[in-house]
Amino acid sequence: MSLPNHFEVVGRDGEARTGLLTAPHGVVRTPAFMPVGTQGAMKGLQWCEIRDAGADIVLGNTYHLMLRPGAERIAELGGLQRFTTWDGPMLTDSGGFQVMSLAQLRKVKEHGVTFRSHIDGTAIELTPERAIEVQRLLGSDIAMQLDECVRLPAEHGDIERAMQLSLRWAERSKRAFEGAPAGHMLFGIIQGGDDPELRRASARALAGIGFHGYAIGGLAVGEPQAVMLAIIEETVPSMPTDRPRYLMGVGTPDDLVGAVARGIDMFDCVMPTRNGRHGMAFTRFGQINLRNARHADDPRPLDEESSWPATRGYSRAYLHHLVRSGETLGAMLLSGINVAYYQSLMQGMRAAIADGTFQQFRERTLEGWSRGDLAAR
Amino acid sequence: MSLPNHFEVVGRDGEARTGLLTAPHGVVRTPAFMPVGTQGAMKGLQWCEIRDAGADIVLGNTYHLMLRPGAERIAELGGLQRFTTWDGPMLTDSGGFQVMSLAQLRKVKEHGVTFRSHIDGTAIELTPERAIEVQRLLGSDIAMQLDECVRLPAEHGDIERAMQLSLRWAERSKRAFEGAPAGHMLFGIIQGGDDPELRRASARALAGIGFHGYAIGGLAVGEPQAVMLAIIEETVPSMPTDRPRYLMGVGTPDDLVGAVARGIDMFDCVMPTRNGRHGMAFTRFGQINLRNARHADDPRPLDEESSWPATRGYSRAYLHHLVRSGETLGAMLLSGINVAYYQSLMQGMRAAIADGTFQQFRERTLEGWSRGDLAAR
Repeated sequence: MSLPNHFEVVGRDGEARTGLLTAPHGVVRTPAFMPVGTQGAMKGLQWCEIRDAGADIVLGNTYHLMLRPGAERIAELGGLQRFTTWDGPMLTDSGGFQVMSLAQLRKVKEHGVTFRSHIDGTAIELTPERAIEVQRLLGSDIAMQLDECVRLPAEHGDIERAMQLSLRWAERSKRAFEGAPAGHMLFGIIQGGDDPELRRASARALAGIGFHGYAIGGLAVGEPQAVMLAIIEETVPSMPTDRPRYLMGVGTPDDLVGAVARGIDMFDCVMPTRNGRHGMAFTRFGQINLRNARHADDPRPLDEESSWPATRGYSRAYLHHLVRSGETLGAMLLSGINVAYYQSLMQGMRAAIADGTFQQFRERTLEGWSRGDLAAR
Repeated sequence: MSLPNHFEVVGRDGEARTGLLTAPHGVVRTPAFMPVGTQGAMKGLQWCEIRDAGADIVLGNTYHLMLRPGAERIAELGGLQRFTTWDGPMLTDSGGFQVMSLAQLRKVKEHGVTFRSHIDGTAIELTPERAIEVQRLLGSDIAMQLDECVRLPAEHGDIERAMQLSLRWAERSKRAFEGAPAGHMLFGIIQGGDDPELRRASARALAGIGFHGYAIGGLAVGEPQAVMLAIIEETVPSMPTDRPRYLMGVGTPDDLVGAVARGIDMFDCVMPTRNGRHGMAFTRFGQINLRNARHADDPRPLDEESSWPATRGYSRAYLHHLVRSGETLGAMLLSGINVAYYQSLMQGMRAAIADGTFQQFRERTLEGWSRGDLAAR
């Protein structure tokens, strides 16, 4: 059964497209990058900074939130938006990916996945139905089906088994989502590892079930970028053109540009905040390691032309000092600088696609990165 | 020789007083609380938040900054204000206190103190002259003399020896400060442990040397609050009335009110940020431990009447969740909440002293703290 469509493509340039996704808590401009608020918070950032950086939507991790503080508790407190004070759209993952990467003693069965909490060892079962129930309790704008994601490289048989299981879970997820409040969305997840045939089969089967949007899962799990981009290229033509396409867990700025060029509309990744905590800055000059001694005496900002106050307002010498000293402010500033850079990159892509100049934007951007950082003084 | 006076007492109520201290980077309203930016940064706070919270002046730690990134480097980068972007007044300590508490293999001699850096083991000598030189390189508005601080309880002989040494270092500090740019200030530090006679002798001798202001050092080093307040009471009458009086390293909100009532004008302490990092909030209801399970389901803010956005805008349940999850945002929000509460307390005292209602303000404030937090729901 077809579900109502809340996505409108408003511009195309080659395979790249820009659009508007209307969610209960607001409109998301695509291509969109969703910063990740794992446990109901962005590491090192205040919510107002996420908004100021230009993010329309953020991602919350179901696995973490169901363990602590608990989905029922968040529901009683008015949902994730009221709980966190982030009043814009929010997408929640199904919890499946973190179960695979964090939980102990996990067992995948037809009915669902059983595991023990990494926090206190409690035995928990996550089924497609429970994953949807949890996400409805959280009140997220966009829920994801439970799927099984296989780390690459993997045996073909394992990839196919996980893909088929994910499809059966997709059907159960959709049934469980019936009766959700109007405007809330459910996305299916394409699996199939690095096998184009499995990917296409997964995409077509999901389209047959019918979702508000479609994600490509199981990439950025260890394979080279070229493999990832090839899989995207093989998969996108089998995805409905009128629905948002979401590439899960990706990636570097270069990944984003490459994936948008191949028709992807949405992304999420911890990279801007995680790398920020490790002293790395993303700018139009590429990735910059503030820990490097070359910055110790450099009074210049990271990028004096940036619209983000911290990117143009703090010297490299100060950021270097904060990183070297392990001061929280260093992680805070670099996380903000990176989230803002990611958002400005998305905004640049959206504008270029609308103008029909995406290819020029892409070349200019890649050229800036490959030229590298300012020469040392 | 008398130094120019940049302090004006504009109101008195009993021993309490309110005034204005004019520093090169701005005017400090007293009684003033200085948040501590140990290594050139406030832990968990952006500089704009310090300003928004109402702080006129902050403290930087000379010991940390001389080791990393180095005073000469900060001078080359335009001084501490330009380096950090904090453009208001800044006081720096002499480095002596941290040498005593952090450095290794320290030896106090007449000439100065030798020690090894806790970061890389480098052998360093800090003399009264070098302490002043470092602070002038940093460009702080207010420099402190090098002193020797003895942890209490201590033998009378040790206390007296350290006090006399601190006086000789005070004279050398003052000589070293000659030629400092106009408007920059040097404070002497009264020592003498818990001996009122030594405290008075130290205060009188320092007044004879002549400083821009006078600090009481060597308190809040392990003695009960009653001992501290008694020493303040014994010491203040020997301090010049027209100069600012600074109680170093103090303290709890209750300490601040008690000390202001005894004529103190300035304070610094890491408590608001350190306790914030440990899940503690200071409010008009006293100190609140957000880690406590009673907050887990409580949708109420810490204080709905607070003028600080985070104090009234986040639920206790959310703050509890952040603290329990170890999310940086919890430390960030609580540090801001606490710094803002300290500043609102100072503002309340300043206004009450000016109005002649300090005693009522004090009683009302203590009553609020002793009534304790809101009843659990």
